[in-house]
Amino acid sequence: MSNARSPQAPYEVIRWSEEGLSLLDQTRLPWSVEHIAVRDLASACEAITTMRVRGAPAIGITAAYALAQEARRLSSQSVDDARQGLAQAAERLAATRPTAVNLRWAVARVLAATEHASDSAVLAHLATEAAQEMHAEQIEADRRMAALGAPLLEDGAQTVITHCNTGPLATGGLGTALGVIIEGHRQGRVRDVLVDETRPRWQGARLTSWELQQHGVPHDVIADGAAAGLITPRGVRAAFVGADRIAANGDTANKVGTFGLALACRYHGVPFYVVAPRSTVDLATPSGRAIVIEERDEDEVLSAGGTRLAAPGAHAVNPAFDVTPAELITAIVTEAGVLRPPYAPALREAITGRSG
Amino acid sequence: MSNARSPQAPYEVIRWSEEGLSLLDQTRLPWSVEHIAVRDLASACEAITTMRVRGAPAIGITAAYALAQEARRLSSQSVDDARQGLAQAAERLAATRPTAVNLRWAVARVLAATEHASDSAVLAHLATEAAQEMHAEQIEADRRMAALGAPLLEDGAQTVITHCNTGPLATGGLGTALGVIIEGHRQGRVRDVLVDETRPRWQGARLTSWELQQHGVPHDVIADGAAAGLITPRGVRAAFVGADRIAANGDTANKVGTFGLALACRYHGVPFYVVAPRSTVDLATPSGRAIVIEERDEDEVLSAGGTRLAAPGAHAVNPAFDVTPAELITAIVTEAGVLRPPYAPALREAITGRSG
Repeated sequence: MSNARSPQAPYEVIRWSEEGLSLLDQTRLPWSVEHIAVRDLASACEAITTMRVRGAPAIGITAAYALAQEARRLSSQSVDDARQGLAQAAERLAATRPTAVNLRWAVARVLAATEHASDSAVLAHLATEAAQEMHAEQIEADRRMAALGAPLLEDGAQTVITHCNTGPLATGGLGTALGVIIEGHRQGRVRDVLVDETRPRWQGARLTSWELQQHGVPHDVIADGAAAGLITPRGVRAAFVGADRIAANGDTANKVGTFGLALACRYHGVPFYVVAPRSTVDLATPSGRAIVIEERDEDEVLSAGGTRLAAPGAHAVNPAFDVTPAELITAIVTEAGVLRPPYAPALREAITGRSG
Repeated sequence: MSNARSPQAPYEVIRWSEEGLSLLDQTRLPWSVEHIAVRDLASACEAITTMRVRGAPAIGITAAYALAQEARRLSSQSVDDARQGLAQAAERLAATRPTAVNLRWAVARVLAATEHASDSAVLAHLATEAAQEMHAEQIEADRRMAALGAPLLEDGAQTVITHCNTGPLATGGLGTALGVIIEGHRQGRVRDVLVDETRPRWQGARLTSWELQQHGVPHDVIADGAAAGLITPRGVRAAFVGADRIAANGDTANKVGTFGLALACRYHGVPFYVVAPRSTVDLATPSGRAIVIEERDEDEVLSAGGTRLAAPGAHAVNPAFDVTPAELITAIVTEAGVLRPPYAPALREAITGRSG
């Protein structure tokens, strides 16, 4: 699709081989770079739930490979039994995290690919092929998004801001928003990056900072609450964030804290860009109000690094995501192009024009 | 000044006795409630710098008592030497934290009170009297602010949101913004509170949650970045925050993250109230642009609970405060009344009308 050259990640996030699926365990980063074998469905569900793998595209691809692996396991059974087993596995995987739409899209696509299998060996082969295809497409989509997004920064090397982690770790390719930033740095358009630490799970401080170091991009971590006050003194010129689900009207669910960053950008007149593959768009969700927001364990807020920080007896509410209203989003960068408001027709066209 | 009854803090934050000054060590909260003796000037500076005592009014009162103690120590010297020693001590104290204006105001007031002392014993007596008077005035100002602020909540028991810690721990009285909330709960106007955890030093999770528990006020801690997305689903009806310095035009420096909360409130049409005693107002600072923002150690961002959380090699920028533009503030509650925009004349009148 594109001949733009982009830097490749110097580490493998999702690995598929004859031995099966293995993942770079993101709960161990940045302290140690360890791949864990994901031998069965239960391990795959556990890896997604506990965020050993996270990032909407990466969990979609992981779920697809987990289904392929499950299809192989079922290949000694009748094709009907294998198909039924696969459908059950798909349901278990889809339930691991309710907000990301790529996950549902990915498992639905594997099931669709195996629909006409004549026997269970063919079914396993088709499932594997679908998962590998999706992974390859994501790598290519990331290249396209980086190539399309980086030129949004027009006036020499600039400071940009980002939230959560959207690099190779989040997609298994170059990343979405962080892919744009890494490519922008390679092209001399990004001087440095302010990285929201991203409470409560520190994806910015732990993962984005680690990835930017691997790619040699200068950056500073900040408390999430510091963004609004730093945009002016640091001369921030653009924000790039990812997405877990984009509704038909452009409302975007992403890591909690994204909405606040969008508000800060709007107040300061700084462009706010969402970078996400088309698989993140859910035309069946009319607006952000229809998006189910995953609530995670309160202990993620009340403790840090294994240490209880909140007062004994304190409770927390811990939504994993929030919804940024479309009106706060300057553009949505997809592999099919840079979409501008009004988003309803632009998203419809980008999705229905999908050939794959 | 007021006959409104307000709940008193069931713990003593700043204690002054014949033995001298002692402080509830806020770095040990909520795990242990320990008072530490502050025997000399160096201990007082250390206690303020390391935030064993924090909150703009509380550090002002602490500095005043520390000066009184220093004046007692100097009382064997000549009055000129004592006065010079006191002036040097005042400078050291004022330099401990650059953003809070109460600190400067408090030490200036102690020096002014001792200006006409005829001998060093009288000087020590006057300094002590000034410090005690300021503490008593703060307690009374807090009662007034609570009585004036609580009725801003008009329609039955509501959910409110706050940032950082502004309770008894922050003033040595009932508190500023949290005093309003505690009094509002007593009056049946506050049902529950969303408490920003307040990175990087967790004053919300550690101190505000602890104080609300002491006063029996239901609450949930949230990640700072979660506020924008929770205002609508939780039905938040007002925000109350404190201030470290209010400029002549109403721009308000407060704990980093306050600006973002104000933006979220504005977007959702939720009133955003600043609650602060008049000693926080600095008419000599024309606007927020003139306020020096204290930068603290990057390790406060990169680590938590003694554990490094950010990637090795990561750096952070760590402004302790931000400035909320006056246009985002619905009202400023002082002990002299509830001030409404335009703030320049309202603040001038509130301050020049000061009789103390």
